[in-house]
Amino acid sequence: MTGATATLLLSCPDQQGLVAKIANFIYANGGNIIHADHHTDFSADLFLSRIEWQLDGFNLPRDIIDRAFAAVGKPLNASWELHFSDERQRLAIWVTKQDHCLLDLLWRQQAKELPAEIPLIMSNHPDLGAIAQQFGIDFYHIPVTKATKAEAEAQQLELLRQYEIDVVVLAKYMQVVSPEFIAQFPKIINIHHSFLPAFPGARPYHRAYERGVKIIGATAHYVTPDLDEGPIIEQDVARVSHRDLTADLIRKGKDLERMVLARAVRSHLQHRVLAYNNRTVVFS
Amino acid sequence: MTGATATLLLSCPDQQGLVAKIANFIYANGGNIIHADHHTDFSADLFLSRIEWQLDGFNLPRDIIDRAFAAVGKPLNASWELHFSDERQRLAIWVTKQDHCLLDLLWRQQAKELPAEIPLIMSNHPDLGAIAQQFGIDFYHIPVTKATKAEAEAQQLELLRQYEIDVVVLAKYMQVVSPEFIAQFPKIINIHHSFLPAFPGARPYHRAYERGVKIIGATAHYVTPDLDEGPIIEQDVARVSHRDLTADLIRKGKDLERMVLARAVRSHLQHRVLAYNNRTVVFS
Amino acid sequence: MTGATATLLLSCPDQQGLVAKIANFIYANGGNIIHADHHTDFSADLFLSRIEWQLDGFNLPRDIIDRAFAAVGKPLNASWELHFSDERQRLAIWVTKQDHCLLDLLWRQQAKELPAEIPLIMSNHPDLGAIAQQFGIDFYHIPVTKATKAEAEAQQLELLRQYEIDVVVLAKYMQVVSPEFIAQFPKIINIHHSFLPAFPGARPYHRAYERGVKIIGATAHYVTPDLDEGPIIEQDVARVSHRDLTADLIRKGKDLERMVLARAVRSHLQHRVLAYNNRTVVFS
Amino acid sequence: MTGATATLLLSCPDQQGLVAKIANFIYANGGNIIHADHHTDFSADLFLSRIEWQLDGFNLPRDIIDRAFAAVGKPLNASWELHFSDERQRLAIWVTKQDHCLLDLLWRQQAKELPAEIPLIMSNHPDLGAIAQQFGIDFYHIPVTKATKAEAEAQQLELLRQYEIDVVVLAKYMQVVSPEFIAQFPKIINIHHSFLPAFPGARPYHRAYERGVKIIGATAHYVTPDLDEGPIIEQDVARVSHRDLTADLIRKGKDLERMVLARAVRSHLQHRVLAYNNRTVVFS
Repeated sequence: MTGATATLLLSCPDQQGLVAKIANFIYANGGNIIHADHHTDFSADLFLSRIEWQLDGFNLPRDIIDRAFAAVGKPLNASWELHFSDERQRLAIWVTKQDHCLLDLLWRQQAKELPAEIPLIMSNHPDLGAIAQQFGIDFYHIPVTKATKAEAEAQQLELLRQYEIDVVVLAKYMQVVSPEFIAQFPKIINIHHSFLPAFPGARPYHRAYERGVKIIGATAHYVTPDLDEGPIIEQDVARVSHRDLTADLIRKGKDLERMVLARAVRSHLQHRVLAYNNRTVVFS
Repeated sequence: MTGATATLLLSCPDQQGLVAKIANFIYANGGNIIHADHHTDFSADLFLSRIEWQLDGFNLPRDIIDRAFAAVGKPLNASWELHFSDERQRLAIWVTKQDHCLLDLLWRQQAKELPAEIPLIMSNHPDLGAIAQQFGIDFYHIPVTKATKAEAEAQQLELLRQYEIDVVVLAKYMQVVSPEFIAQFPKIINIHHSFLPAFPGARPYHRAYERGVKIIGATAHYVTPDLDEGPIIEQDVARVSHRDLTADLIRKGKDLERMVLARAVRSHLQHRVLAYNNRTVVFS
Repeated sequence: MTGATATLLLSCPDQQGLVAKIANFIYANGGNIIHADHHTDFSADLFLSRIEWQLDGFNLPRDIIDRAFAAVGKPLNASWELHFSDERQRLAIWVTKQDHCLLDLLWRQQAKELPAEIPLIMSNHPDLGAIAQQFGIDFYHIPVTKATKAEAEAQQLELLRQYEIDVVVLAKYMQVVSPEFIAQFPKIINIHHSFLPAFPGARPYHRAYERGVKIIGATAHYVTPDLDEGPIIEQDVARVSHRDLTADLIRKGKDLERMVLARAVRSHLQHRVLAYNNRTVVFS
Repeated sequence: MTGATATLLLSCPDQQGLVAKIANFIYANGGNIIHADHHTDFSADLFLSRIEWQLDGFNLPRDIIDRAFAAVGKPLNASWELHFSDERQRLAIWVTKQDHCLLDLLWRQQAKELPAEIPLIMSNHPDLGAIAQQFGIDFYHIPVTKATKAEAEAQQLELLRQYEIDVVVLAKYMQVVSPEFIAQFPKIINIHHSFLPAFPGARPYHRAYERGVKIIGATAHYVTPDLDEGPIIEQDVARVSHRDLTADLIRKGKDLERMVLARAVRSHLQHRVLAYNNRTVVFS
């Protein structure tokens, strides 16, 4: 099971013959499927699929696969993405002052758990610049105030273009990204420190403590203009008790946050996530 | 570790010497402590404690223990409850049409997991009368409409008095209990079919599906006049995926509901739960 | 998404074009796939697949589908099973004295969580006959001793034939089933009260307590001649602490056992489980 | 709740009056208890207790508390430890080549989650020296072969003495520590990459894959001369599926390992763990 693979991530209106047509395209061109998973959402009348096959032995050069597949996909009114496993995505991490999610992502990238390059770290505070330096990653400190937000976002967009960033990960970036920004760069993953939809917004651990919950959580989701309302990619929880003060919730939550964010980012980078109707399919 | 035990469940303003004073009272009267657990909530300046000791060899007759302890507890401005393990509480179960929590509680009572007698089942629908009959438990069908609610609650209260009920368990009772009722009978445990504070109110599984959460939950709490806002006793969760339709969430949720409710009821019956400031200490 | 479905559960040596060939068979005959999941075990060079499609509109009468598919499956050296969702399987439950798994399965069958008929309960003790009677299910008490084991198993096999049983569920049946029996009736699911491979054999909760583990578990598996060594279908765990005595482990374990067994039986009845090389694929 | 605290960790044969006597000692000397938790193991006839109180206002100077308490503890045949929260323990981390547990512990120490100093990292391989340097911690590379083991252990013991180490954490140290070493330095915490007692010894993830388990785990325990048989402090698990190859088990296991080890080390450093009879009480 060596060599590069192609991954097709597709959605289209449900109809007969979808699996056959897609599989035939790959088979007819000499491809060997190594992962195929499909899902039909009957209430949305939508078929969603992820197929991965070996490029070794595949008859089509990789630069024409997309065009060739259009002959199958267009008549189905499908939307699709095509990715190659050896073309690593470029990921930017945005942070504020907390370092646990940042460090965790950087370790995992070094440990080859995340198939991505991380050329850019951006923060509205200077504090984490030393970590960026230590990992040899460019760091930009772009303060954001109400008055400078539009300007700051323009600068951020320019950086994303310049560094050819594919996906932004908000790893405890404690600023709201504007709808205008999202319209121009929609691939943003955020980690929220609560079990959404419980405790959206600020200070979720304090509110969890006050509410007296017995379990806390964290949620990774795509960012949309509605704060903390985007499609959920991954969630996890931890048990707490009356012994746990707010500080303990924060401490336990940090572990949740980095695990949940890492799993979401990895699924995204492996092209396992399809978002639609404010929800996600995560192919396992 | 045989024989009956006494359990003291106490809360009072925090001050020095509390553990010593309480333990001395038991030791001085020949008691052997088999469980002692304390908690201090510093933000509330409150000390909470559960102490259980063997009655065998204890010098005070059980009917004067409470009065005797007042000499310790009153100067501390303490509130306390005293319970004896061989005096089983009397529990009423209220249901509507769903039987899973009811059956689960009845099985557990038969399996001796719940130290209680269950002499009364009450429902606003007649459907579950057959189960009550099969277990030999009196069943009352009291329909509740807007117009008859006050009258129905009066009848319910009268039944609780008549059957000498200590605690009511709402085991999927799909009616709101009025503040007036709660004022007169405050020991009510409810199971809510969501991970509160997410999805309070009606149709939580439908809303969980729509929100696209990756984890669902259930919450057992004491009932207060604020719907689904009472002190949480126990919560648990289960993972779901895009494969799970609302019907699957409901099915998986049923297992959560009966587990969570059973644990909460058991903790309550073992006098392990102290509620204060809309939260609980659950001594393990 | 109404109407009966056909489910094909297939395994064959891995090769190119498998998904295409199978999907084409269904598409060419007018079938609409509602669930398709595939897995390739590269170390075993094995392709495993579950495909479910609507019979409504399918061009082949159901009694010739299997023969028709042979034209696809045989050249692939495939093994396959074909099932129809409206042909409910017949399940026998074997018990000894403990009732929790039995009651749980019966309740789930009544709640329509288990697509099966349960016409037969068999036990080596008479204790649970009353439950069988209450649910209107035939009950056979077949004592098993070393001396009578062969005879008892012959009687058991005869009952399975007579009741046309498809699958046997050992729901806390505390007897070892002989290799000879398994050879004649291999579809047997067992629940073991430990997190296998920890604590195989007798008294796992006592041994878990002695070892001082912080988590206990339960395991559902297919029965093979090697005791507690069969392919695992499902496992789950629960946290325990120093507060938990062996009796508490047993009590908590009972909840694990019934949950794990129910999930495994449901997966099996939905034809989601493929066993090979002493392991399973469980299609979700 | 500020200021330093004293923590008494005590075990003694069970008898009447234990809580009273210990609490009286603290109360009589003006101490304010902020945490008190007791456990009685009736099968071992053993009482175990952890009491923490504020030193601010306590009448005894800290250097005579231990001697003073002997007047209480000795008549009870108690064993006890006395610790002060502002006297940080000194922790040595031993590693081989894998860095995930090491990095995790170092990050937590920097984040003030671990009340300890970490002056020493020791390894049988040179690979992780760079990390030690980066965190400004002394690193010793001591190769261990069969022939040099005794000599290496002598050198290790000398380092522990020299650095005044209180506890050694084996953070993926892939060497067996000899009984002789343990006899001289018994405070050693190990992380084993399986859910003990399943898969003791080498290559647990490979064996877990082969056995086809649906859940993997990790176990932190005190080291004893019997390999992987010491008292368990903490365990946790993660769900796996047929999609997960051995490499995935290893990857998921790394997260388990660092979480479980960190929790165990933190509990130990907070003096919450009492080991007896090859098991532990972990006061929460």
